[in-house]
Amino acid sequence: MKDKLTVVKIGGSTVGNDTRLNEFISVFRKLEGKKLLVHGGGKTATLLASSLGITTKMVEGRRVTDDQMIDVVVMTYAGLINKKLVASLSARGIKSLGLTGADGNSIKAHKRKTKEGLDFGWVGDIETVNSNFLSGLIVKNLVPVMAPITHDEAGHLLNTNADTVASEIAIALAQRFEVSLNFIFEHKGVMQDINDPESLLRSIDKSRYEVLKKGKAITGGMIPKIENAFRTIGEGVSKVRLLDASALSHLQNPDFNEYTTIH
Amino acid sequence: MKDKLTVVKIGGSTVGNDTRLNEFISVFRKLEGKKLLVHGGGKTATLLASSLGITTKMVEGRRVTDDQMIDVVVMTYAGLINKKLVASLSARGIKSLGLTGADGNSIKAHKRKTKEGLDFGWVGDIETVNSNFLSGLIVKNLVPVMAPITHDEAGHLLNTNADTVASEIAIALAQRFEVSLNFIFEHKGVMQDINDPESLLRSIDKSRYEVLKKGKAITGGMIPKIENAFRTIGEGVSKVRLLDASALSHLQNPDFNEYTTIH
Repeated sequence: MKDKLTVVKIGGSTVGNDTRLNEFISVFRKLEGKKLLVHGGGKTATLLASSLGITTKMVEGRRVTDDQMIDVVVMTYAGLINKKLVASLSARGIKSLGLTGADGNSIKAHKRKTKEGLDFGWVGDIETVNSNFLSGLIVKNLVPVMAPITHDEAGHLLNTNADTVASEIAIALAQRFEVSLNFIFEHKGVMQDINDPESLLRSIDKSRYEVLKKGKAITGGMIPKIENAFRTIGEGVSKVRLLDASALSHLQNPDFNEYTTIH
Repeated sequence: MKDKLTVVKIGGSTVGNDTRLNEFISVFRKLEGKKLLVHGGGKTATLLASSLGITTKMVEGRRVTDDQMIDVVVMTYAGLINKKLVASLSARGIKSLGLTGADGNSIKAHKRKTKEGLDFGWVGDIETVNSNFLSGLIVKNLVPVMAPITHDEAGHLLNTNADTVASEIAIALAQRFEVSLNFIFEHKGVMQDINDPESLLRSIDKSRYEVLKKGKAITGGMIPKIENAFRTIGEGVSKVRLLDASALSHLQNPDFNEYTTIH
């Protein structure tokens, strides 16, 4: 039987808010068994860029990463956010190791090709996850803390979507572990009506998803997230959940279902 | 017989200059056997701070690290410089792993105490180096790349002198490896007369050092560097050298002596 591995992804609304971050770490700490954390931090990067007089340019919801912006995101994600997380986890007794894809050559990517004149700059599309390297850390009970930065093995660091990093890691490690993939949200999960806290959708399969998308209950940034999630299920990941941080502490309870599962 | 380990420390004049950095990496790559790299980067941090409108305050040649400045040095050292080094090494086929003292709890420190009203802020004095963790990486032929940031195991990151980080790591690993410690300089080593390239001092022992210090051939920042070096020799480090980057490629040649050795 494979060991269980809990992969958790947190985004800007958690890492950019000290109170939320502390709450998250308290819950993450109590998660039993082997675990791996992936973080984003776009909001913090945008703030730093703005302080430096660098304008953030977004196209189709994605950051255009020019020469200046790659330095900003590397400083923010791999420096400030990653190391604060590692120090905070360590203070709670969790031995962790902060990584980018360049460290231990853990994630190789290539620079996204210019398409129809659209150049995202130093943005990475993942080619391979070094699951041997990551497994080697995890079996020693180290918690890898992954910043959403990869590299091309030619010396370039690449800004990479954190949801995609989490999904690709979950898929790669599913060969070795029984992996659950957990995307932390501000809400309990996918809500049928964002204004109705009772409208949590506890489970979404492909046909339900198509209906929800047509009915505009799922829009914008949620679309690639959920499509990513379907893919990981197809590739051997045992469970994919969208949930709020507090729900993490109830996952051991089989009756608890206050989150969205993707089937 | 112990395996050899070459510890190399580079400072701001190398990491802040792309040409020098590339030259250094070419030479470092060719170094045979196990190795570990420690980097500084104060000049880059000062530039970033200045772009953010944060004034750098130095006392006795050391940076005062307030709440804003610790974020700047973490972003610069652990983010930008560390990850560029790791990506560049990886591009040359050297599998490396960028670390702060918080990662894997590799270096525990405490915040320097206020003394005679002098508060350096978030500056760390090293307590322990986790030599088991670092050895475990090195025996797997990973090259640890250490940023001069430590932590206090209470969630605080601490700005720590890179020469001291290199020295303490060298001492801790001397139990397991035959360690040489190499401080990369802009000059060939310690010069009797900085304006005379022929005046390289090939070897300095304690009595010679006292004479040089009295005669002002050794002043300022060189004093703690060399005193640190004497200490590492006393603590089991096999060799301590001050040298320029190009000299690294000649260390296998027993007749080569264009550097300063500390005895």
